[in-house]
Order: sequence, then C-alpha cells, then structure tokens
Amino acid sequence: MQELKNRIKNDGHIISESILKVDSFLNHQIDWKLMENIGIEFHKIFGHLKIDKIVTIEASGIVIGVMVAKALNLPLVYAKKGKPSTLSKAFCTQVFSFTKQKNSDISISKEYLKKDENILVVDDFLASGNAIIGLLDLITQAQANLIGVGIVIEKSFQTGRKRLKALDINLHSLAQIESLQDGKVKFL
Amino acid sequence: MQELKNRIKNDGHIISESILKVDSFLNHQIDWKLMENIGIEFHKIFGHLKIDKIVTIEASGIVIGVMVAKALNLPLVYAKKGKPSTLSKAFCTQVFSFTKQKNSDISISKEYLKKDENILVVDDFLASGNAIIGLLDLITQAQANLIGVGIVIEKSFQTGRKRLKALDINLHSLAQIESLQDGKVKFL
Repeated sequence: MQELKNRIKNDGHIISESILKVDSFLNHQIDWKLMENIGIEFHKIFGHLKIDKIVTIEASGIVIGVMVAKALNLPLVYAKKGKPSTLSKAFCTQVFSFTKQKNSDISISKEYLKKDENILVVDDFLASGNAIIGLLDLITQAQANLIGVGIVIEKSFQTGRKRLKALDINLHSLAQIESLQDGKVKFL
Repeated sequence: MQELKNRIKNDGHIISESILKVDSFLNHQIDWKLMENIGIEFHKIFGHLKIDKIVTIEASGIVIGVMVAKALNLPLVYAKKGKPSTLSKAFCTQVFSFTKQKNSDISISKEYLKKDENILVVDDFLASGNAIIGLLDLITQAQANLIGVGIVIEKSFQTGRKRLKALDINLHSLAQIESLQDGKVKFL
C-alpha cells in the first residue's frame, strides 16, 4: 500500500534498529483518512472470504479494527487487557510483551466470540507475533475459525511472520519492513 | 439521540443501580454504523465551533474519537494509559478509577498537544468526571483550549456533570440517564 509506505517514510521515526515510531498517524495521533483507506485496502484483500467478525486487541488495534469493520460491514470485537470486572464469562490468555517485559492478560467475553464464527484478525504491528498468537488462542478456545490476519506494519526482520506461517495462517501485511538499519526504512 | 437511546434500552444490561453494561455495541463488541452516526451527531452539535483536534482516552474512547474525527475532518489524539517508553516528552497526570479503585497514569505526547490549539474532548461514558478532568489537566498543561466535551452516555445521577459545569465546560451528552433503578433505564 503505497500511501502507507510513503507516510512511514515521511513521518515515521526510527528509534533503533528494531523500533519504528509511527505515533504521529497510527497509534497516538490518528489520521482518520489513512485509517479509512487501510480499511478499504483490507477489504480488497479479504473481502471475497466469508467472514463474520473482525477481532483486534486494545488499544492500538482499535482504530484499524473499526475501519476494517466499516469497510467489510461487520461487527468488531476487541480483546481487552486484563480481566475486567464486568466480564464474568470470558475467554482469557496471556501475552508476553517485549516492550514491557512481562505477561499481560487479555480477554474476550464468551458472548462475542462463538463456535464456528469466521474471524478476521487485524492489528497495527506484527513483530514477534505474540499478540496475534494470543488472539488465536482465544479464537481456538471459542471453537471459532481464524480466516486471516491483516497487519498494517510488519517488521519482517522479526519472528512474527515465520511463526504465523508455520501455523498455516493466511497473513497479509500492508507494509513489510525488511530493516531499519542506518536510520532508513527499507521495505521488502 | 433516539437511535442510541433505543439501543441502550434494547441491548444494555443493568448490572446494578450504578452500572450499565453496553459492551455488545459500544465498548467491547462495536457496531461501527452506530459509532459513525454518533460521530455525525457530534458534528451537528460542535461542527460550528473552531476546533483543531479531537482528544479522547484509551481504550473505549478511541472508536468514538475516530468517528468524531472523521465527521469533523480533524486529527484524533488519544491519551495513553501509563507512561509508554516511546513517549519521552509527554504531558502526564493521574486519574482515579472507581472501577479499579486506584490511580492510573495517563499521558499525551507534547508533539500532539500544542499551545493555543482548540480541543474537543469525547468519551463513551461520563460518571464521576475523573477521566475528563484528567484530560483537561493535560490540555491545561499544554496551554491549549478545551472547546467542548462530547459524551455518549452520561450517568446523570453521578457527579460528573455537576463537576464539569462548575468548571464552565461546554458539555453535551447524547444520552442522559437519570436512573438505573428497578432494572430499568430511565432517561432525562
């Protein structure tokens, strides 16, 4: 997706060889029009499949999720961090965060993830793949089906893609970053 | 907003005389079309004002925020919980959560909240008003201007409205709940 790649080149900040900051348009300040176009792009990729629901994880997946939900005219469900007191009957799992260097609980209410539902998972970043594998765990607990995974920015130099492909997941990323070396974003 | 009130009546779950669960359409599973209509409704209310930016707080404010941003064609900035490692220069404050019975840090990067900017704050719920007052603290630190506050569901039997009106805030709520007594939602 050229518009996205241009935006990453122009407005992304390379913090280190493994960290790209895109919080001017994707996960702190939000450019709603780019997000809407990302939704339309995922519709082009996944729109031919039978999908019942979009699933993502709070917080930075939510904007992507709702725009994909709009483009495909489907409900969105976002996994919550922790085990909220108002979610008494929920599927729960743990996700290890490299940023925070700890395990975090995530959960989805059993009311909103049902047996045999076809699920498209979307998220802003793919790095280690831990968040997606956590969501897959929730989907598996529900006996629902993971139809595909749509990622906005994939750090292809990390292990996420390999881990998800080993699980035979239908993975599409709108921007695949080969490296962040020498202060430059190099796309695949 | 009648569509919203009908939805609360039909799909809201009254957990107690102070807790209304709307996670089938507003803050866990999301009905994107209702969210889009909420954005359009806030445009009707605030669209005549000079506004530079929409501000909300993660996680459940984000969907509202991006739909208001779309309706008003403005950027959205959402306050993050905690002090993320990638936010080195941020405005920070603490918000007391009654649900969690503890203080939580929230922050907005100084890059995305500037002096003299006119800010519209939106959020899903108004109860005690603590979250909005926390956001006002960040806006004040930035020497920006709070132009208005748009709330989807106001629990009018709690202290939030009184506290915000005492600060002379331009407050509009799409659904004002007078009480949740006897298992019924009573609107003002």
